Amino acid sequence: MKIGVIGPGAIGMLFAFYLQKAGASVTIYTRSMEQAEHISRFGISCNLDGQVETQFPDAVPLGAIAIEDDYVFVAVKQYDIGLVLPHLQRTQARFVFLQNGMGHLSLLQNMQQKCIAVGIVEHGARKETAGSFVHTGMGVTKLGILAGEEEFQALLPLFQAPYFPILVEKNWEEVLRSKLIVNACINPLTALYRVRNGVLLTNPAFHNAMKQVFSEVIFVLDEKEERWEHVCNVCRKTAENQSSMLTDVKLGRETEIDAIIGYLLMQAEKQNKQVPLLAFLQQSIKGLAP
Amino acid sequence: MKIGVIGPGAIGMLFAFYLQKAGASVTIYTRSMEQAEHISRFGISCNLDGQVETQFPDAVPLGAIAIEDDYVFVAVKQYDIGLVLPHLQRTQARFVFLQNGMGHLSLLQNMQQKCIAVGIVEHGARKETAGSFVHTGMGVTKLGILAGEEEFQALLPLFQAPYFPILVEKNWEEVLRSKLIVNACINPLTALYRVRNGVLLTNPAFHNAMKQVFSEVIFVLDEKEERWEHVCNVCRKTAENQSSMLTDVKLGRETEIDAIIGYLLMQAEKQNKQVPLLAFLQQSIKGLAP
Repeated sequence: MKIGVIGPGAIGMLFAFYLQKAGASVTIYTRSMEQAEHISRFGISCNLDGQVETQFPDAVPLGAIAIEDDYVFVAVKQYDIGLVLPHLQRTQARFVFLQNGMGHLSLLQNMQQKCIAVGIVEHGARKETAGSFVHTGMGVTKLGILAGEEEFQALLPLFQAPYFPILVEKNWEEVLRSKLIVNACINPLTALYRVRNGVLLTNPAFHNAMKQVFSEVIFVLDEKEERWEHVCNVCRKTAENQSSMLTDVKLGRETEIDAIIGYLLMQAEKQNKQVPLLAFLQQSIKGLAP
Repeated sequence: MKIGVIGPGAIGMLFAFYLQKAGASVTIYTRSMEQAEHISRFGISCNLDGQVETQFPDAVPLGAIAIEDDYVFVAVKQYDIGLVLPHLQRTQARFVFLQNGMGHLSLLQNMQQKCIAVGIVEHGARKETAGSFVHTGMGVTKLGILAGEEEFQALLPLFQAPYFPILVEKNWEEVLRSKLIVNACINPLTALYRVRNGVLLTNPAFHNAMKQVFSEVIFVLDEKEERWEHVCNVCRKTAENQSSMLTDVKLGRETEIDAIIGYLLMQAEKQNKQVPLLAFLQQSIKGLAP
């Protein structure tokens, strides 16, 4: 089976590595020729608990060849989807989109392809070099199928427990929503305060601030107060983690603020709801990582 | 003439130095015996444009002797006023309070003394050691007299231009108000973003964020949009400065957030006004400098 993975970040490498290992014929599509050559030559190395293993998928720059894969995983950041979509229009592959947030859903609903899914990735992975990553946390990939359910059945056996399991999630919109609430509460504040996730629980003033953010988030989404417990649980479980947004801000890289807070601001505007704190966080993070 | 100065911070040293130099007999009241001994022995040194000069006022710990000065300048932070007030009740001196913000005004209006003023200090001064400071910016001290106007006339000749002028300001509440608006817009954001004042002008996203804060500030104070220009002017003029709140946060010291944003939150509560952003800034700064 031919599998394409677009985007050689941490998540892209995670998928390329494990699917190649499971016997698929993987092609990873990169942004530059250098990245493609690096991976072609040295492969993709996964470090899991100190054990390093290497797989050798094909690697080419996106656009250099026609995409003829059976399934394509789109593992670029949400803000780069616009750059990738033109390359997808010409192919009949089935697509799985791996972005955070919910901002891309309306884009996907407008695509002409018949088989489209979103993947909600609960693994932890950190890119180390252009061809290596650390698999920091085992999780599951939840597959939410927007269109063409039967067509995705053949993909499932490639996801092998215990390291890389998959789950078809009927209730995927709820899962995305829950993840969005968590990301909206944790990511911008950890980036703004430059703290690890757990500090939002242990510092009483930050905890209050997070509760204020939460209130605006559930106001926009018409959600219940009970979601708060889940947000706190995730903070607790990931207490030692540095959020991806904090990493991005530290490195001066573009963040996913538009995919998370920007999406909520659009929803608020549609409903004519005032969310001053979310608007402030959007500006603050944009200012920190312009 | 006998002058007391309570608090040997940058502003306290600035006043003790220049008033002693002008011929007054100054006593500076410190928190600890060590501080008092240090100043008694080495004096207070002022660095103005690289020229260092030393004056030798008396120095004693507050409470060690009865205050018998003609005028007393209270140069502690607003959050320490509560500690100082009991020492002031027993004396008949005239008082000048040098705190930022407006939170202490209601306290002063309840004092039994007949001669009370506030001083609005527009100098820049930075404490270097326990007995030295840098006079970084020349300005004027604006004296707002709450009670006992005539009693303050004898004080005025001690303030000598060009280095240390004074101005009796009839419109002192307006001056405090204007300073409060500026401080509320600039200080918390510079501390949160860890930037110098000018970046709030040059970074477009931070500029938007400051405008949002400004909107809530003028909403609480029933002030006009036209104040915005003044806020931006101060940012421009002090572009290279690091706000005192940023310094406090960096050093993990208590900030003046209560005197600035806390005061506005109290005013908002009295009027039943919602100011989510100010509430968020209060929590954020308290979290950063607990």
